This record gives sequence, structure tokens and C-alpha cells, in this order.
Amino acid sequence: MSLGACVWFTGLSGSGKSTTAAALVPLIRRAGREVTVLDGDVVRTHLSAGLGFSREDRDTNVRRIGFVATEVVRHGGICVASVVSPYRATRDAVRAMVGPGFIEVFVDTPIEVCERRDVKGLYAKARRGQLTGMTGIDDPYEPPLHPELHLKTMEATARQNARLVLKFLEERGVLDPQPLEPARSER
Amino acid sequence: MSLGACVWFTGLSGSGKSTTAAALVPLIRRAGREVTVLDGDVVRTHLSAGLGFSREDRDTNVRRIGFVATEVVRHGGICVASVVSPYRATRDAVRAMVGPGFIEVFVDTPIEVCERRDVKGLYAKARRGQLTGMTGIDDPYEPPLHPELHLKTMEATARQNARLVLKFLEERGVLDPQPLEPARSER
Repeated sequence: MSLGACVWFTGLSGSGKSTTAAALVPLIRRAGREVTVLDGDVVRTHLSAGLGFSREDRDTNVRRIGFVATEVVRHGGICVASVVSPYRATRDAVRAMVGPGFIEVFVDTPIEVCERRDVKGLYAKARRGQLTGMTGIDDPYEPPLHPELHLKTMEATARQNARLVLKFLEERGVLDPQPLEPARSER
Repeated sequence: MSLGACVWFTGLSGSGKSTTAAALVPLIRRAGREVTVLDGDVVRTHLSAGLGFSREDRDTNVRRIGFVATEVVRHGGICVASVVSPYRATRDAVRAMVGPGFIEVFVDTPIEVCERRDVKGLYAKARRGQLTGMTGIDDPYEPPLHPELHLKTMEATARQNARLVLKFLEERGVLDPQPLEPARSER
């Protein structure tokens, strides 16, 4: 059985979790492995329809994703989760569930930048008071204290960051080391 | 990567799905494989807290289990699900999601027998009118038309039925054939 792993991207809304995950997934597939993609928004359709954004509902959502991740890793599979998962205690509970295959990746982007991007218009809504419980605005984000990886999106592209995760997976023995691509394929 | 499979036990409440699953799981583990156990009741805690037993909620529950099963099978894992899953169309939707690894096992026990056992007291409640939407009483159970396996619990023990499933998994190439246990270990 292959070595399983759960790459868990945590960070503010708009920090670049899904973008980094989207850059990582094809790199893992190219290394010959299947990937389960657990994107917070996708998962809310499949696993958590009806849940809101209260602390309790967020926790339930995160734990459900953790449940799926645990089962994937149990079978030696690789799972890439991107979910705000703002509370440290809940992330640590998922870490305990998944076991040593849990790889916490902090996608660290200043909130001013996230708010400027505001891809989903959530920050604007929160500022207008049309949305409560927005992480970083009126709900806390508790950054990881000891993440396996700490990615700064202001200093590197999503593709560069995805490669750092890939390298980590190779070092952990989850993936076989891949030959570097020739420079001309850099996009 | 190993060949993945989802053994999906369907049948009335009290038909013996969980009992057969509980007999099967150690046989799979003895064959050297990990198993994800998705028992309807357990899953309602982890994946579907808050869902009821309306047609819509039942479907949501079944589809969520199907979602997890799909991801397990994607990585070559084995999953054993036991869930009433009364509606044919929903089971067929799960079959389509999971793919060729889906093994539908009809646990066929006459409703009179299920009602006599009534382990959870649900039939009595339904008869007293304290519970509506009880499968087999005031909600339909649509038996599989072409299940991979059709188990009759009146003519075989759970252990014997579990061995039929094991044999099927071996024939499918999911498990390596195991040597038969000596007869004295029969319990």
C-alpha cells in the first residue's frame, strides 16, 4: 500500500488555498497518484448542504471533511483539502483523526490582500453588515502554531508554492521524486 | 494500487445488514486489507447529523455515504456500507458514482422477521403511529433488480453470508484467495 497523506490548506477566505490546491493536484497526478479533492465550497454541496457559518456548523463541516480525509489516508490515498478551518482546536482534532499523514499547510495572506481580491464578494458583504461570522472580520482566524508548511502568497506564485508542497510530499516518501521539468515549460 | 470495491448492503431495518457487515470486515482485514466501515447509524453521527427520514433526507444521507465510498474506491480501498437505502434510483446513482467497484448486496429478510426482531424498536413505534416514514411499513423498500449478490438470511448465518461476499471479492480479484480455515475453528 502506498503512503497516504492529507494536505490540509488552511487560511482566510481569498488567501489562495483553492488556487494553490488547483496547482498542486495535477503535480500529484503526474506523479502517478490519485487525489481526492476536498474543497470547502464543493464539500458544502456534497457533505454539508444546509450547514451555515456558525462556530458549530463550521466545526461540523471541518470534521466531516476530516472524516473523509481520514478514510482516504487509511487506504494509502492522497487527499487535498482547502477549507478556511479557522479554529485551531478543530484542526488539531482533524490532525488527531487523520494521524501522521496530516500535513497542515498555512496559506498566509494578509487580510487586506484577501479583502482587496474578495473573489466571492464576502468581505464587502461583511463590511456592509449583510454577513456575520466572517472569518477575519467579526470571527477569529487562529493561525497554525506549528504547520508542516507555511506558504506566503505575496512572495511566491501558486505554482511555486504548489511545488514546495510537492517537494515536501517527496521528502516524506508519499511521492516518488519526479524529474524537474525543463525550464521552457515554465508558465 | 489494489483494486478498490464498495460492498453495499441494502435491506430493511433489522434485515441483518450490519450483522453481516460485522462478520465480513474481519475476513477482509485477515486478507490483509484495510476497510472503511460506513454503517448507516454510525454515519448519521459523522456525516449526516441533523438529517431525518424524509425521502429527501434519506437520499442526502445515502448520497453522502456514496461520496465517501467513491473516494475510498478511487484510491483502491475497500469500503463496507450498510444502509437501508430503500430507493432503487438513489442506489443506482451511487453505483454510477462509485463505478465498477460497486457491489450491491441485497440482504433479503422477510419484513415479518425484521419486525419480530425489531432490535431498535422502530417497527413497534411505527405500528403505534409514533414514527412515520418507516421503510416497509408506510414507506416503500424497492428491492434491487440485479444485485451482485442476493443473501437470504433465513437460510444462512451471517458468517456464511459474509463468506459468500468474501468469495465474490476474491473472484473479482479484489482480494487474494485465502486458505480455508480448519473446520474446528468454526464458531
